[in-house]
Amino acid sequence: MRKDYDLVVVGAGPAGLTAGIYGARSGLETVVLEKGICGGLSNEAPEIENYPGFKKVAGLELAERMKEQAAEFAELKELEAVEKIEQVRGEEGKRRKKVRGEEEKRRKKEEMKVVTEKGSYVAKAVIFCTGTRHRKLGAAREDEFLGRGVSYCATCDGFFFRNKQVAVVGGGDSAVREALHLKKLGCEVTLIHRRDKLRAEPFLQKRLKEAGVPVLWNSVVLEIKGDSRVRSVLRFDKERESEEVVEVEGVFVSVGEEPANELALQLGVELNQSGYVVTDKNQRTNLERVYAAGDLTGGVRQVVVACAEGAVAATSAYNDLLGLGGEGGGK
Amino acid sequence: MRKDYDLVVVGAGPAGLTAGIYGARSGLETVVLEKGICGGLSNEAPEIENYPGFKKVAGLELAERMKEQAAEFAELKELEAVEKIEQVRGEEGKRRKKVRGEEEKRRKKEEMKVVTEKGSYVAKAVIFCTGTRHRKLGAAREDEFLGRGVSYCATCDGFFFRNKQVAVVGGGDSAVREALHLKKLGCEVTLIHRRDKLRAEPFLQKRLKEAGVPVLWNSVVLEIKGDSRVRSVLRFDKERESEEVVEVEGVFVSVGEEPANELALQLGVELNQSGYVVTDKNQRTNLERVYAAGDLTGGVRQVVVACAEGAVAATSAYNDLLGLGGEGGGK
Repeated sequence: MRKDYDLVVVGAGPAGLTAGIYGARSGLETVVLEKGICGGLSNEAPEIENYPGFKKVAGLELAERMKEQAAEFAELKELEAVEKIEQVRGEEGKRRKKVRGEEEKRRKKEEMKVVTEKGSYVAKAVIFCTGTRHRKLGAAREDEFLGRGVSYCATCDGFFFRNKQVAVVGGGDSAVREALHLKKLGCEVTLIHRRDKLRAEPFLQKRLKEAGVPVLWNSVVLEIKGDSRVRSVLRFDKERESEEVVEVEGVFVSVGEEPANELALQLGVELNQSGYVVTDKNQRTNLERVYAAGDLTGGVRQVVVACAEGAVAATSAYNDLLGLGGEGGGK
Repeated sequence: MRKDYDLVVVGAGPAGLTAGIYGARSGLETVVLEKGICGGLSNEAPEIENYPGFKKVAGLELAERMKEQAAEFAELKELEAVEKIEQVRGEEGKRRKKVRGEEEKRRKKEEMKVVTEKGSYVAKAVIFCTGTRHRKLGAAREDEFLGRGVSYCATCDGFFFRNKQVAVVGGGDSAVREALHLKKLGCEVTLIHRRDKLRAEPFLQKRLKEAGVPVLWNSVVLEIKGDSRVRSVLRFDKERESEEVVEVEGVFVSVGEEPANELALQLGVELNQSGYVVTDKNQRTNLERVYAAGDLTGGVRQVVVACAEGAVAATSAYNDLLGLGGEGGGK
């Protein structure tokens, strides 16, 4: 089965869903492909307070609203992972070249073939919105205890740890949010952080203090210990240069994310040193009619920013496909 | 009365309100100053369907929600127009320079004095979110009939023209939205456009056709005619090179916007040829600790994009004030 689209959006987090809304509303035949369920990492946010328009909204609810909205205009396919994307010389290109000669040769129309688990799609333009995934802690036995006490998402798994001792490892906004969420659920939370101060926004730090969550500073988790389940972590105190066993039944790892850049890399999209996709201000990549939006492009990791980038990427795709040119782009 | 703030945001449209949310949540003492009421031009949108999270929302309602949200964190002052902004050598700068000598001289701490109708504020950082204003048509007697049949906002004034003949002048998204809104209100709408096709997105064009709104193509409005009120417009048909009187009681002008750049210009902020503020991808302008966000910076004029730029500008201000540096910015 092969289907032709103007625009294929890969990934259905906030960026991808918004790209879907904008692409389809501008008249482009648009499909959004998602390997899991819509929403991306924003699904894991228990409460979002800084998405304009909502004083407080659960990430899952916001994603659900965006999904319904996108589905009004674009085709949405969940549980359909993209396996490969490659450039192919498009039919349109071949035909045009024959008829109009040299002039057309210069702007040859490549198309892209997007192969998924379930079929393949031909696209004139592709927007990568594949986001980021959780970075691992790198502690011994971390993988062994995944799902048996080790988690990367307090929103998803916190419920199972009520009234239990848990550790959150990390010091950024996400780590503090996770700690606060677990505390509210009724967990006995300790934050373990490798530095002597938190990176999290002051507002969140204040809440953490108010909630009475203790912090173990200058601490590296060397190993996760247990039997059939997690029972403790081995903590190294960098100041005292001593090791200590901290008894916990849950370890929530929140030490940042890394870009899910494999598909983009495979196609030849330029990445920066940290592995994020390089785009101009119109979300164009180094490849023609290939765009990127959202966390995959780095920058401020905020839902509203991802949405805006999705809107801009789809607008650029529309302009480029219709030969309208972007507005003062960087290329 | 003089008050000191870390951050003064000028303008409380979507960009300014979001800058307020982000600035204040990051711990900056933040005030948002607005000459009119919150919401900016987004207030005029009868229905917004592409702001992620809302299938359909009135511009006024969305602005009200953002306002309430911003007011939870930042100070908001409506009906307080900024008259002047100037750089002053800050107290902090003088003191530091004395104590720490040459090193400090290089990064001298200028502050900005923001003078309003009601008082003055001293700010370490300023974000311009002054947006755009409606462009005039340039027809004879246009000013004379303002408020007596000539309007720049169908959402605001359309109600008074139910069951009457009205013209919308323009061909972009806004013009078509205005025409659809007036039609729905029960007006007899004609669209007058100077070209032979519309710039509006295909989706809107389709709706316009479905609504049965006639379009007068290749037409320039030369004059607005009437007595105490508008009675007609004088239309020049560029194809036939003929003039014709079109009887209408209302003229809704929707021919684009121009940047409200006076305050930024006065301070020395760099503008592009069209008068929009030039920023890097972190919303920094050419001046230290001066940022711009939203429609004032040109680009894709969409609520979600304005919000994202406000969020990014406030994040940059926070990073710069704390000496954290931006993430891979253009400067």
